[in-house]
Amino acid sequence: MTKLWQWGEFPLIKLLTKGFKAGNGVVVSVGDDCAVLTYTPKEYLLWTSDLLFEGVHFLKDAPPSAIGHKALAVSLSDIAAMAGKPLYCQVFVGLPSSASVAYCREIYRGISQLAKRYGVKIVGGDTNAFEKLVIGTTVLGVVEKDYLTLRNGAAPGDLICLSGKIGKGKETHLSFLPKVKEARKIKRLLCPTAMIDLSDGLLSDFTRIAEESHVGGRIFLEQIPAVAGVKKEEALISGEEFELLFTVKPKMRKKVLKAGFFLVGEVTKRKDGIKTIDNKGKPFLPPSPGYNHFKREKRNKPL
Amino acid sequence: MTKLWQWGEFPLIKLLTKGFKAGNGVVVSVGDDCAVLTYTPKEYLLWTSDLLFEGVHFLKDAPPSAIGHKALAVSLSDIAAMAGKPLYCQVFVGLPSSASVAYCREIYRGISQLAKRYGVKIVGGDTNAFEKLVIGTTVLGVVEKDYLTLRNGAAPGDLICLSGKIGKGKETHLSFLPKVKEARKIKRLLCPTAMIDLSDGLLSDFTRIAEESHVGGRIFLEQIPAVAGVKKEEALISGEEFELLFTVKPKMRKKVLKAGFFLVGEVTKRKDGIKTIDNKGKPFLPPSPGYNHFKREKRNKPL
Repeated sequence: MTKLWQWGEFPLIKLLTKGFKAGNGVVVSVGDDCAVLTYTPKEYLLWTSDLLFEGVHFLKDAPPSAIGHKALAVSLSDIAAMAGKPLYCQVFVGLPSSASVAYCREIYRGISQLAKRYGVKIVGGDTNAFEKLVIGTTVLGVVEKDYLTLRNGAAPGDLICLSGKIGKGKETHLSFLPKVKEARKIKRLLCPTAMIDLSDGLLSDFTRIAEESHVGGRIFLEQIPAVAGVKKEEALISGEEFELLFTVKPKMRKKVLKAGFFLVGEVTKRKDGIKTIDNKGKPFLPPSPGYNHFKREKRNKPL
Repeated sequence: MTKLWQWGEFPLIKLLTKGFKAGNGVVVSVGDDCAVLTYTPKEYLLWTSDLLFEGVHFLKDAPPSAIGHKALAVSLSDIAAMAGKPLYCQVFVGLPSSASVAYCREIYRGISQLAKRYGVKIVGGDTNAFEKLVIGTTVLGVVEKDYLTLRNGAAPGDLICLSGKIGKGKETHLSFLPKVKEARKIKRLLCPTAMIDLSDGLLSDFTRIAEESHVGGRIFLEQIPAVAGVKKEEALISGEEFELLFTVKPKMRKKVLKAGFFLVGEVTKRKDGIKTIDNKGKPFLPPSPGYNHFKREKRNKPL
């Protein structure tokens, strides 16, 4: 009997979502950061849900306010990836009965503070007792119809860009600020052809754009904007960065740089595959393409 | 340091949701089955989220399709409780890496079949690896503005009614069908002043209506429609029934009975409190008012 760890996450999601189709009020069903639903004449409704687990997405001894912060931040980052504006949020948690009321307050403080900062209203949720901390959020947002940015519009010749430096996801994943304003700026200035937020790693998440757009791509190792102290080879596969990865038409090159964003590669034809090129012009093969949720080893640390 | 099990579920929810307010697109924020948001000129958007845990809401060896069924059914039941129509659903799961692909397919088959039956489209979600099975859904629905039924409209003199027989929640909680059509019928025929779906038990859930409506109530033990083989005393506190508990104006008495629903009590003034009356006209005190998620004992069985 085939086990999940033999399959990996993406084949599983593909299998399970095979019957999910767009149409009849649904503009985008699966295969992107958010579902897109019809809403007002000028706007779409964006909808995303995320679930975080103790020992997987955060450690047991992480500050509770940071856990709350992250639970909402990952969903806001999905809204950002579609160039949308988050509006409402629901929170669902499983809390150990032995947890203190003060601990729970801190979790909710983390959520509330981030919600306030992004103008998001918390409108309900679900609270249960469970042996480990499990916390999720579901967020509704809106995007103007002409602002909606999907993963499927990249074309050969387009430039691959990043909104900021990467490589320290392990340190910043509990405190990062979702790039909602940055995404709106990218849309306004650069008309991106595709966009995604970096959750599993630059290489892995570009693969998602490539698959949805039916293209290939070259990422130039030398051009990756790694934060100080991190090798570019590590930045390439570093997960939970939550910067925006996007593609633009070649004519936008100067504007990308002027706006303070980074060029990291170029979109190619699908048959050319996805390659990372080192500074000698040779293909570089990373030890792993990025994060896979279903693997056999017992992990003791998140990411 | 106060622990959650010393507090119970409702004081916790009250504390944590203190700052959540209606206004600016939010018609109802917390304190009801769903959040209610502005939507079209004639309709509101309904939004609810539920999270189920292995060992709490279902046993490890429960049929996977039944687990999937329940995960969606509890959210659809929340939409029913507001007299709404469910439209869209997202599913988030934590799955053990050792689970078989066939097992996951069965979970999703349970969800998909129920979704199809109720005309609900599955539009995304989140999939993670976790040591135990955790599964949640978030559902969006609509309700005509004049159909919206909240928990807060019950008034002294109103009749307390039930949509069906209760008492076997322990057996039916994995297979029940949410009362969406029944709720629409109740709204159309009986103009209920308040409504809720029975998740924690008749007595406990009536208490929620009473609190939101600032009223008291008398439940007549003799009138409780217990299923065959169940004592009325047990039916009073039996959880996960998912029938609809609603209140109507006294003039509706005949219509309630003609429509096949059950009368179980009457709404009183708040100062009279909430009482269960036995067949000798004396107050009956149940061993517990209903289900409390946060309690100290380790439980081995769901509910």
